[in-house]
Amino acid sequence: MKIKSGESVLLLSSDNKTFLVDIRDGKVFSTHLGNLNLGEAIGKGYGEVIHTQLGKPFYLLDPTLEDRMMKAKRLTQIIYPKDAALILLKTGIRSGFRVIECGVGSGVLTIALSNAVFPDGRIYSYDRREDFLDNAKKNVKDAGFGELVEFKLRDVKDGFDETDVDVVILDLPSPWEGVFSAARSIRGGGRIASISPTFNQVEKTVESLNNEGFTNLETLEILIRKFLVRPGKTRPFERMVSHTGFLTFGRKAIV
Amino acid sequence: MKIKSGESVLLLSSDNKTFLVDIRDGKVFSTHLGNLNLGEAIGKGYGEVIHTQLGKPFYLLDPTLEDRMMKAKRLTQIIYPKDAALILLKTGIRSGFRVIECGVGSGVLTIALSNAVFPDGRIYSYDRREDFLDNAKKNVKDAGFGELVEFKLRDVKDGFDETDVDVVILDLPSPWEGVFSAARSIRGGGRIASISPTFNQVEKTVESLNNEGFTNLETLEILIRKFLVRPGKTRPFERMVSHTGFLTFGRKAIV
Amino acid sequence: MKIKSGESVLLLSSDNKTFLVDIRDGKVFSTHLGNLNLGEAIGKGYGEVIHTQLGKPFYLLDPTLEDRMMKAKRLTQIIYPKDAALILLKTGIRSGFRVIECGVGSGVLTIALSNAVFPDGRIYSYDRREDFLDNAKKNVKDAGFGELVEFKLRDVKDGFDETDVDVVILDLPSPWEGVFSAARSIRGGGRIASISPTFNQVEKTVESLNNEGFTNLETLEILIRKFLVRPGKTRPFERMVSHTGFLTFGRKAIV
Amino acid sequence: MKIKSGESVLLLSSDNKTFLVDIRDGKVFSTHLGNLNLGEAIGKGYGEVIHTQLGKPFYLLDPTLEDRMMKAKRLTQIIYPKDAALILLKTGIRSGFRVIECGVGSGVLTIALSNAVFPDGRIYSYDRREDFLDNAKKNVKDAGFGELVEFKLRDVKDGFDETDVDVVILDLPSPWEGVFSAARSIRGGGRIASISPTFNQVEKTVESLNNEGFTNLETLEILIRKFLVRPGKTRPFERMVSHTGFLTFGRKAIV
Repeated sequence: MKIKSGESVLLLSSDNKTFLVDIRDGKVFSTHLGNLNLGEAIGKGYGEVIHTQLGKPFYLLDPTLEDRMMKAKRLTQIIYPKDAALILLKTGIRSGFRVIECGVGSGVLTIALSNAVFPDGRIYSYDRREDFLDNAKKNVKDAGFGELVEFKLRDVKDGFDETDVDVVILDLPSPWEGVFSAARSIRGGGRIASISPTFNQVEKTVESLNNEGFTNLETLEILIRKFLVRPGKTRPFERMVSHTGFLTFGRKAIV
Repeated sequence: MKIKSGESVLLLSSDNKTFLVDIRDGKVFSTHLGNLNLGEAIGKGYGEVIHTQLGKPFYLLDPTLEDRMMKAKRLTQIIYPKDAALILLKTGIRSGFRVIECGVGSGVLTIALSNAVFPDGRIYSYDRREDFLDNAKKNVKDAGFGELVEFKLRDVKDGFDETDVDVVILDLPSPWEGVFSAARSIRGGGRIASISPTFNQVEKTVESLNNEGFTNLETLEILIRKFLVRPGKTRPFERMVSHTGFLTFGRKAIV
Repeated sequence: MKIKSGESVLLLSSDNKTFLVDIRDGKVFSTHLGNLNLGEAIGKGYGEVIHTQLGKPFYLLDPTLEDRMMKAKRLTQIIYPKDAALILLKTGIRSGFRVIECGVGSGVLTIALSNAVFPDGRIYSYDRREDFLDNAKKNVKDAGFGELVEFKLRDVKDGFDETDVDVVILDLPSPWEGVFSAARSIRGGGRIASISPTFNQVEKTVESLNNEGFTNLETLEILIRKFLVRPGKTRPFERMVSHTGFLTFGRKAIV
Repeated sequence: MKIKSGESVLLLSSDNKTFLVDIRDGKVFSTHLGNLNLGEAIGKGYGEVIHTQLGKPFYLLDPTLEDRMMKAKRLTQIIYPKDAALILLKTGIRSGFRVIECGVGSGVLTIALSNAVFPDGRIYSYDRREDFLDNAKKNVKDAGFGELVEFKLRDVKDGFDETDVDVVILDLPSPWEGVFSAARSIRGGGRIASISPTFNQVEKTVESLNNEGFTNLETLEILIRKFLVRPGKTRPFERMVSHTGFLTFGRKAIV
């Protein structure tokens, strides 16, 4: 498989920095290690190398889901890959599922959701900010998932259009305001996931989930610790991200 | 969607215990809260309830990927959902991918991989223990993914049959022994992931990955902390799982 | 220094279990590895060994502060060594200090406080439960610090007798109720420390501290992760204590 | 108790920054919030306030052990308060103890050790770098503990002068080189503590400890997580220190 013009490629430098670029003949991309002539990538394979005018190598890599998420243009705090990964697994989102997310933020989770319901599922992405929706729409399109997502300008208190969806994901300042709407849109046994930074939000959300007939509630957080691995000198890195958000999960009971 | 005979259903008790059962008319399932007549589930919807002869309710839920993984029959240590979720995201495994895993253990990761490459990808699952392969095969079949996986009885030192696969995943006592074989089977830019419990394994694996032309190496661990959420009395649980394994990731360079 | 009759000695078995015993001639102590004749310890030195009738060795060790704390008789949740250690360091308690603690619980922190203010400081230990005070008194006496501590039966809302103390430590279900009393008893620049298990308690306590003129507020928790160290097979233990309590610190301002 | 000329005082600004200064009449101290006339502190009490020429208040506080440690002049990595606190507690260092530390680094742990053995214990502080010893000596003297410490210029491989000490603390690039010397200087039942950043160091140290007759070995690390506490918006801070060092403890057996 050869790289073609128009393709999104992840460039990796020798000092482990990455850049997501669109390959086009004649396009020059400036880096901290010199300029790359992106046209040179055309016809090469993934894992191969192009060089800056200073002779510095950059690997040509096919972007993973994580790369797509981390390189999306951000207008908001994003949902990080570690959190998105567990949301996908715990809600069981898979090929063919119909999923509501509210709010959409920068569309980073939307990319992960689209990837998971591909090819025949559907994502309904609500936000009350038009500028966020516009940016998210572009990010999702750039990731190649434009066809799978419907974006809707709406405040969560006005409810969702869909019924019998498999999963609802809430990323809201007041997630408990979304629980009522979610309860009306999720099918029996369908899952809800909420992400929020404070304990206070978690408490109110769990209370709403209990009131609206959700069961099997679980709240957790994910910490990732990275290691510096060198023969004979291996240790954890000295600093880490300590907090992104708390995740709360539940399943819709029919009562 | 009504529950049918033969379907796998997750039963959830009021004290938050879960059981994965196959629904069949006339089948009785014994729990700590009394006996359930599983035939009563037929024709009900997910999220609905059946009762034991003691009147204790059990919710009928459709199993998520996590449920399938945690309820698989284990002959070995398993790869936990938190680790599997990040492996999927970081390697970018998606619909259509071809993936090698070695060893297969109890087939728990195999279920997660199959779910991710569905409907038209392929998993090649190697192990040198026939009893492990047999058990894994059954677990994967029970999860509904029998068609996507080829199981192979083989020691990792004897190499893999496939070439140009997108991802190789190593879960071996000596993962560095698998790196040489992996390097020959992965396409340019393809990803490798290794999971192992000790620092010593990580050190040797990273050394092999460097020698065999892998780049963008990263080693990390995932900690999950759970919370007891009650209005006015919210706190972390008092004990947690502190360690399952270290994850190492890399991408294949062409040199 | 030879072990004498009446002395407290920590016994350590070959499988790393410890027992705090009073040595006395003729006294027999039963363990999972057989019976020890404690009189045999008299005249031996620390670090030496006595054996059960089954020939199993037990080391004779002088108890550390941690041993004293962990072996105290408990009627309540205790303040763990990890938390006590940081409380001591952050409040700067040292030889000669006068310290109020409320409540006293099982007197485990009292032992650590006494050890730190030795030889000429003073601990004022309040609790509203007489049975707790009695047990704590015995634990503190057994640890050799009986002379340094005054125990007082009192509800925190009734205030403390002392003024101009250096440090007040609150370990209460409603720590905010103690902040008012503490503010009246601490000298300018003196420190307060509060320990409590829930976020809700922390929030209310911090609010009270702000209202009562405390400054330099800080809230944190301490996690200890243990490692299984074996040549070539070193890794974290698989389970850990995830939560004991949140610690809040402040200093008294004069306004 | 009024502040006198020559006294060390911790200044605390309204934005929670701290400065450790020596009070002297006529001395001006520049801060990010303007200049302070330090002479104004003389005759005031702790907890009171002085102002910059811009009217910004600074609290006058008596420095805690932690303040002394964090404000010492550093030529090296230091042992952090969280680690020092647990070393003190687990080794049981108390008034009257004799303790060897090697190396001395910037003397930060030396301050904590001196505070703990006060008034009649003794610290023997070894280092092979004269510049480190000189700096440490000054830091210890500034903290008021000059009388309790003997500094010695020596490589650990040349052994220690003292015998029958209660505790030895190793903070060395090759701690296993210190274990042999330590074993000869510690009394029976005495404790050893070692701190080092990598797993490889830990493995070799534990091996040496086993060989030299230490028992009750334990390796752990301490993580501190801080919280942003605001009514209705409480959450962990977003970043944290992930690693300072691993601590290994043991007790000397007589064999």
